[in-house]
Amino acid sequence: MALISPSRRLRRTPFSDGVEAAGVKGYTVYNHMLLPTVFRSVGEDYRHLKTAVQVWDVACERQVELRGPDAARLMQMLTPRDLRGMLAGQCFYVPMVDETGGMLNDPVAVKLAEDRWWISIADSDLLLWVKGIAYGYRLDVLIDEPDVSPLAVQGPKAEELMVRVFGEAIRAVRFFRFGWFGFQGHDLLIARSGYSKQGGFEIYVIGSEVGMPLWDALFAAGADLDVRAGCPNLIERIEGGLLSYGNDMTRENTPHECGLGRFCNVETAIGCIGRDALLRVSMEGPVRQIRAIEIPGDPVPPCDRIWPLTDGRGRRVGRVTSAAASPDFGGNVAIGMVRMTHWDEGTRLVVETPVGEREAVVRERFWL
Amino acid sequence: MALISPSRRLRRTPFSDGVEAAGVKGYTVYNHMLLPTVFRSVGEDYRHLKTAVQVWDVACERQVELRGPDAARLMQMLTPRDLRGMLAGQCFYVPMVDETGGMLNDPVAVKLAEDRWWISIADSDLLLWVKGIAYGYRLDVLIDEPDVSPLAVQGPKAEELMVRVFGEAIRAVRFFRFGWFGFQGHDLLIARSGYSKQGGFEIYVIGSEVGMPLWDALFAAGADLDVRAGCPNLIERIEGGLLSYGNDMTRENTPHECGLGRFCNVETAIGCIGRDALLRVSMEGPVRQIRAIEIPGDPVPPCDRIWPLTDGRGRRVGRVTSAAASPDFGGNVAIGMVRMTHWDEGTRLVVETPVGEREAVVRERFWL
Repeated sequence: MALISPSRRLRRTPFSDGVEAAGVKGYTVYNHMLLPTVFRSVGEDYRHLKTAVQVWDVACERQVELRGPDAARLMQMLTPRDLRGMLAGQCFYVPMVDETGGMLNDPVAVKLAEDRWWISIADSDLLLWVKGIAYGYRLDVLIDEPDVSPLAVQGPKAEELMVRVFGEAIRAVRFFRFGWFGFQGHDLLIARSGYSKQGGFEIYVIGSEVGMPLWDALFAAGADLDVRAGCPNLIERIEGGLLSYGNDMTRENTPHECGLGRFCNVETAIGCIGRDALLRVSMEGPVRQIRAIEIPGDPVPPCDRIWPLTDGRGRRVGRVTSAAASPDFGGNVAIGMVRMTHWDEGTRLVVETPVGEREAVVRERFWL
Repeated sequence: MALISPSRRLRRTPFSDGVEAAGVKGYTVYNHMLLPTVFRSVGEDYRHLKTAVQVWDVACERQVELRGPDAARLMQMLTPRDLRGMLAGQCFYVPMVDETGGMLNDPVAVKLAEDRWWISIADSDLLLWVKGIAYGYRLDVLIDEPDVSPLAVQGPKAEELMVRVFGEAIRAVRFFRFGWFGFQGHDLLIARSGYSKQGGFEIYVIGSEVGMPLWDALFAAGADLDVRAGCPNLIERIEGGLLSYGNDMTRENTPHECGLGRFCNVETAIGCIGRDALLRVSMEGPVRQIRAIEIPGDPVPPCDRIWPLTDGRGRRVGRVTSAAASPDFGGNVAIGMVRMTHWDEGTRLVVETPVGEREAVVRERFWL
């Protein structure tokens, strides 16, 4: 694969100096920002993530901030998930769709107060959508991208490391809840969340100048825990069924196709954009849906384009969009979208990879 | 610099097979799509671009298509440039701003018909802004990203190569005008335009399946012209003063700060978003503006972050955002934003680069 050419447009993060010093070997670009993809090797990073603790530069999870009297109304317009029961201090995973029900992003909404929210976004310029809607509806709300950069601490020893830096109170933070914690005179928002199934936290670092001092403090406190720089791990996130916007779903797909129907309450999410389009699909169900796909045998190459799934007689029944060899489960783990005629557990399909046709088996559940 | 990790999210283009076969060495990511940055070396590519002809995969210049009775009204809402005199068959460079006058994109508008437009975008998800505005205003217009991928043919021998593939009629296409040309039974839109100062065309390839046949036809027809795969060249575009959205300007900047005031007609562009914010700046002028900056001496490293400009006594007066060593003009050519107190021709400043402080001289004009 080729080199990535540096430019200001591919934004550095408050943690980039630390990432480089840790020997980052690969990047992707996410929200116009550098996101590390590998440090030692994807396989070695995977094993370490599952056994120790890693610090991840996920500053590319940019925040869209909504402030003002219409903030809550706008938030409910943006998602088919019913937000009425959501309290300040909670995080909600919220599919966001356009008027046709097509996915625009799958962010985490962070409710700071009734009139102040952050949307922690996946890879699309959701800010432009939110600003466009607010302008068109003349809402009384300020929308901006604040200087907030998430730093994730993930892995089975994450809580131990966090306690050392932020104190015992961190243990009381429940899953998808957040609290405020002090660090060198700064208030940081810390949630129990993250893009892995190994447990951990995301620290919303407010103010770029806090970035490297916090990075260094985490590494100093965790030396005996074998803390390392890490990043979202392709293998682990596929095993865990963590979808990636732009990879496993696009504007082409409804939340229901993505298996996110449980995060949609189209009956009660009054005023949400896309409600008309999703009402019927929420009753009838989608005709294709995300599935875990096993590809037995030798490792497949990186899935950098759609791999067609066929029924073995040449009829197209779906696609694979993420794949990786799995050390723990053998063969390759993959994520795909499969038509309902062929999405039952154990259905044997054929996947067309760049290295030829391979057997693919539909699974009911992901691996973790 | 690190490797770029392949994934479906970093979309391949209809020309990627050709780009890879030509030995691409570096990429950037632009509109969630791969954009080549170097083939032999940036310097060698530069010399070749100025003397021969290159074929560029600029499929990442995605199109936002507007169709319907409100298409023209929406287009005028999106830009402070007065579009009333624009005819079908013309291309207009149009700054697009938010309600505060901040740049959201600097695309080329392509008017296919009164009720059908393409916006050929720079690196931001402008589709989401356009869809949000159209939804908020309940406009009668369809907005989508069609399967259209620009392929640029640039360099002094570009016209000769294009004539061989599309015939003599191509010579009649004037600058920033377009015509329709046939290729193997497909109609392609061809404009005289492109992101270089060496002259040439952009072929809007409609239908991905036409991509590689067209690529191959151009190379077959131009073998004796030394046609090569190329890409927007960092050195040449700085010499020519071609700005890069995300590098030299962001949502922080007004068009007037970017030197794009001549593309704004805030008095007459009735209904455009950002009009109130820009009325005063269009009368008074901006307090800082884009300038060509010369950095004499040894080559500087790639400008991957803001380089502060100071007056030599520690006072911040601007920033450099793009820079490259120039074979033809010596030293380094650069683009920066400078406060009006220090923007006059010949003003000597200090630029803080990652390799230390360097002299910087403000220029009145770019090099080409």
